[in-house]
Amino acid sequence: MTTTVHAYAATSPTGPLVPITIERRDLLPHDVRIDIEYAGICHSDIHTVRGDWGPITYPQVVGHEIVGRVAAVGPEVTRHKVGDRVGVGCQSNSCRTCEQCRQGRDQYCLNGNTQTYNGIDPADGTITQGGYSQAVVTNEDFVVAVPAQLDAARVAPLLCAGITTYSPLKHWNAGPGTRVAVIGMGGLGHMGVKIAAALGADVTVLSRGTKKKDDALAFGAARYVDTTDADALGELTGSQDLIINTVSAGLDIATYLGLLDVDGALVNVGAPAEPFSVPAFSLIPARRTLAGSTTGGIAEIEEMLAFCAEHGIMPETELIGAEQINDAYERVLGADVRYRFVIDASTFA
Amino acid sequence: MTTTVHAYAATSPTGPLVPITIERRDLLPHDVRIDIEYAGICHSDIHTVRGDWGPITYPQVVGHEIVGRVAAVGPEVTRHKVGDRVGVGCQSNSCRTCEQCRQGRDQYCLNGNTQTYNGIDPADGTITQGGYSQAVVTNEDFVVAVPAQLDAARVAPLLCAGITTYSPLKHWNAGPGTRVAVIGMGGLGHMGVKIAAALGADVTVLSRGTKKKDDALAFGAARYVDTTDADALGELTGSQDLIINTVSAGLDIATYLGLLDVDGALVNVGAPAEPFSVPAFSLIPARRTLAGSTTGGIAEIEEMLAFCAEHGIMPETELIGAEQINDAYERVLGADVRYRFVIDASTFA
Repeated sequence: MTTTVHAYAATSPTGPLVPITIERRDLLPHDVRIDIEYAGICHSDIHTVRGDWGPITYPQVVGHEIVGRVAAVGPEVTRHKVGDRVGVGCQSNSCRTCEQCRQGRDQYCLNGNTQTYNGIDPADGTITQGGYSQAVVTNEDFVVAVPAQLDAARVAPLLCAGITTYSPLKHWNAGPGTRVAVIGMGGLGHMGVKIAAALGADVTVLSRGTKKKDDALAFGAARYVDTTDADALGELTGSQDLIINTVSAGLDIATYLGLLDVDGALVNVGAPAEPFSVPAFSLIPARRTLAGSTTGGIAEIEEMLAFCAEHGIMPETELIGAEQINDAYERVLGADVRYRFVIDASTFA
Repeated sequence: MTTTVHAYAATSPTGPLVPITIERRDLLPHDVRIDIEYAGICHSDIHTVRGDWGPITYPQVVGHEIVGRVAAVGPEVTRHKVGDRVGVGCQSNSCRTCEQCRQGRDQYCLNGNTQTYNGIDPADGTITQGGYSQAVVTNEDFVVAVPAQLDAARVAPLLCAGITTYSPLKHWNAGPGTRVAVIGMGGLGHMGVKIAAALGADVTVLSRGTKKKDDALAFGAARYVDTTDADALGELTGSQDLIINTVSAGLDIATYLGLLDVDGALVNVGAPAEPFSVPAFSLIPARRTLAGSTTGGIAEIEEMLAFCAEHGIMPETELIGAEQINDAYERVLGADVRYRFVIDASTFA
């Protein structure tokens, strides 16, 4: 017995997402069934359904910023109870046994964690289907509690955009006395700015044009630099301790490495398709680091949610209905969203 | 009044080094005059004189692995006295006032330190001339004491090859329980292997062919992998905490990044002319780091010399006369030296 739920799925790399029904498995002993209330739209969703990161199997329901209420629990579940507000992020399971999992870094599971969509579900071998749907069944250990203070209609993007910027900011010690620049101010970038500012860092936003300047300053940035202004960018040479690159498009990485002070790190959370071209001398003379970071572990997601609750940090969102998903995708690709779409899951019915 | 000394200089990017005389300035209050006994030949010397790193002014005397005896001191010198065995490495001065200098990291001086050759001497505005000569005059703060236990005829390469590998090994915490790979086993690489092993790390040498395998194991490596054997290299996937790349030739950096475990770092001390091609996904899924590191500070050089004295670590050297320098350059370029040439400075006369 499975449960049939309404969803929106991609059925090809080029066509629109369409209404569909999918089956959610019956609860295993440690499973939680979540009635989804809200699902965020992440740029990764678009990359995935369009095959930018490799061919996938269709139909595919994406969405890894999931918020809802616990509707039912398996007999062994201890972490959640019916009625709790909970969330699911990018990963829905992991091996639990490797060094990374044992250290709480399941995002770096050495045996490959289970992505919330387009993964292989260890429970039944099926391809995982994500959050653009009415309900999802997830192992309790990969379901996080959502603090009551956080507005349910806006919180979903924290499960990916929030944690993906929070994790490297913490890992690379952003805080009082550190100078943090954020490249790109879209879904990830705007969360990076808010979180870095709340951590006490001196925040610079590096973005094309000037349209987002006022927002950047309102989100807590100390300054905004239009990256098309080479002189303004040049004035930042050697000035930053940490740069978070949220841009998925290619960029002249050597220029941005040059903005780092000695021992500074440029951390990529956006993933351009083309390799970076990195001159050795952009790293060697100042012991600079080019790194990458992906999402965060389950424990770190809960820590991030508590941090956001404490500091009153929330994503800027635009709530849409399911029928607007395809238009929203085009607007994401055109950078025409401030700053994250959230789908009202009641509209999947 | 200056002192005329014999030296070997490059007079063009393409011609051989030739005998020449150069002037060394009279001692300023904090200067030390060193009668040079030995000078190492570094690959950087060759890159510099041939213009690989940009045009230079000729004639140019290179050499930044200098060992000798203090012959005279200026009236204010307190750190050294006549007769002391001392050394000079890559940098011969720095601003002393920037954050990096104040922290003892003069190799990263924010105002640009003074390179021992092909730099601008702050004392008189001349172009600095290096160690392929009978004597050198250097500010006392950039002259290091050489421990008596270290064989003067072999110690010179520690001033560049030694410190350039020691510094990143220490900075990235090589030691018991860490897995360190060294790419390339030339002048820098063989020191990296010896130092990493002495620090207690598990050391893997990655080098083309098998000719250096026995040496690698003798220097303390736990294993040797022929990098032309793709299967053997593939078996190392995800296995290393730190990789020191000593190779100046281009290499497929993504393959080597793939050998790093989560949170591992690949640190370049060799400087290929072509940029690295770095896919974002070679960094992001395991929070890997690509970094660079240059030489070390004066205090760190003295620490390294003490470490080498304590652990009985010395470079493998081949002692040559000045008339063999040009042949030695060709042999360095052909990787035909085990592992560093040292010039007997008495032959400059």
